[in-house]
Amino acid sequence: MKVGYLGPEGSFSYGVAAANFRQKDLQAFHTIFDCLEAVESGQLTKAVVPIENSYEGTVHDTLDFLYHQGSLYVEKEMVMPIHHCLAVHPEMAAQSTHLTGIYSHPQALSQTKRYLHEHHKKIPQTVVESTAKSAQYVALHGQKEAVAAICSEQAAELFGLSIIAREIEDSPDNQTRFWVVSKKKNLTSQKDLKKMSVCLTLTSDHPGTLHQSLAAFSWRNINLSKIESRPLKTQLGFYFFLLDIVIDCPISLIELAFEEIHLLNGRIKELGAYPIKIIK
Amino acid sequence: MKVGYLGPEGSFSYGVAAANFRQKDLQAFHTIFDCLEAVESGQLTKAVVPIENSYEGTVHDTLDFLYHQGSLYVEKEMVMPIHHCLAVHPEMAAQSTHLTGIYSHPQALSQTKRYLHEHHKKIPQTVVESTAKSAQYVALHGQKEAVAAICSEQAAELFGLSIIAREIEDSPDNQTRFWVVSKKKNLTSQKDLKKMSVCLTLTSDHPGTLHQSLAAFSWRNINLSKIESRPLKTQLGFYFFLLDIVIDCPISLIELAFEEIHLLNGRIKELGAYPIKIIK
Repeated sequence: MKVGYLGPEGSFSYGVAAANFRQKDLQAFHTIFDCLEAVESGQLTKAVVPIENSYEGTVHDTLDFLYHQGSLYVEKEMVMPIHHCLAVHPEMAAQSTHLTGIYSHPQALSQTKRYLHEHHKKIPQTVVESTAKSAQYVALHGQKEAVAAICSEQAAELFGLSIIAREIEDSPDNQTRFWVVSKKKNLTSQKDLKKMSVCLTLTSDHPGTLHQSLAAFSWRNINLSKIESRPLKTQLGFYFFLLDIVIDCPISLIELAFEEIHLLNGRIKELGAYPIKIIK
Repeated sequence: MKVGYLGPEGSFSYGVAAANFRQKDLQAFHTIFDCLEAVESGQLTKAVVPIENSYEGTVHDTLDFLYHQGSLYVEKEMVMPIHHCLAVHPEMAAQSTHLTGIYSHPQALSQTKRYLHEHHKKIPQTVVESTAKSAQYVALHGQKEAVAAICSEQAAELFGLSIIAREIEDSPDNQTRFWVVSKKKNLTSQKDLKKMSVCLTLTSDHPGTLHQSLAAFSWRNINLSKIESRPLKTQLGFYFFLLDIVIDCPISLIELAFEEIHLLNGRIKELGAYPIKIIK
């Protein structure tokens, strides 16, 4: 078995992947796109990718791939608390008040926006592919330049950096949902399936089309824990919707709602039904 | 009058601002946050900010500020076609097949993802605050390093760069909606108001709460051109919704729907009603 994740070692995706699979089966990828494409092509058995952060919202690269390119299914969701730290090269620890650059993944920069605005307002920010990559960069170049990484404490330790500020995320309840995806659909008879995610595309555009589709869930007392629109990438004003459906009723009832939506000219793309694991 | 925009000169926001206001009234800002905060504090009269791109979706910095921090109103929407080009320093034009780095704004990198994946897959990407800033960077550093900017042709010309590829955006219908915001609310009697945007927060969480709120619009035949959820930034699973309402009925009817939603324990924050101008 081969399991891909958004690398390098020390990334948050790595943390989730390592908690679920054997170290020797793991393989790091540079981008979410490349990682998911490797599952699609059969090069990987599974992939561990982020889908949503409590502060920054949906990870568009993941959702857009699953809707537009993929024929993949979610087999498990894992929710992990996210703590960021600011780390420098150990030889720069004394000059950490005079930083010349801050490196990180865009979502980490965004999740620490208020902290950076208050403490490092004028420092140029550079985006790299992952938080662990920023730690790696600082380990390699941080001896000469006073650059800092925003990454997990695990990554800072892995690359031998000095942590100059801990838990710098703006929201104390910062969490990220990760999905394990594969080409295999979970059997709907499994008792521990907690949620189902689907993409809904509406093919007509009269007032209340979305409302009508939601009615198919609402009158059956089926609860949606999330509804989000994303552009169809054709032109302004055309969207698909991600729906997260709570499974607290027979799945066949949910499937009847899909059937009804289909008859109303809505299109449902199933991303899968899955259990949820909370990582402490 | 002072009008802020996401600078520097040559940015797409600049293009929109310059088409609507006098050159001498314009002032460039480094970030959307700083620009909107300057209107909030009274330092600026208005600001021109992007709100949505047809390919990449909502500009979260703008929406999150208007929902969480702002007491600002949208007074006008402008829709502009977006074309990106790849530009290098004129002395590097001959070596443009051996780029060492590509600089741009995250949305521009995202809007040209497929092009970059096909033509410049392994080239490191660096994010800067705006597309024009990337052109400026290449003008300053592109003589020694083979770096390229993704920016408007206008910006490439402004900074004296050589364009090596035109219209590299993945979607041929790439458009961006810009909002002019100020502290003043448009009068609802204006005849040319085309759309109204509001943020809806649901205070209860039983199945169908959103469906119930949408019913207030649906049974009145009020059309929503967009509905999008964004995290409340508290914890996973809590959202507010951006609703774009088409004004093709008396505004008082829309206000009755708001009143009904309010009685159902929903909270509406009005972002304003506004005319729409399409820029060719």
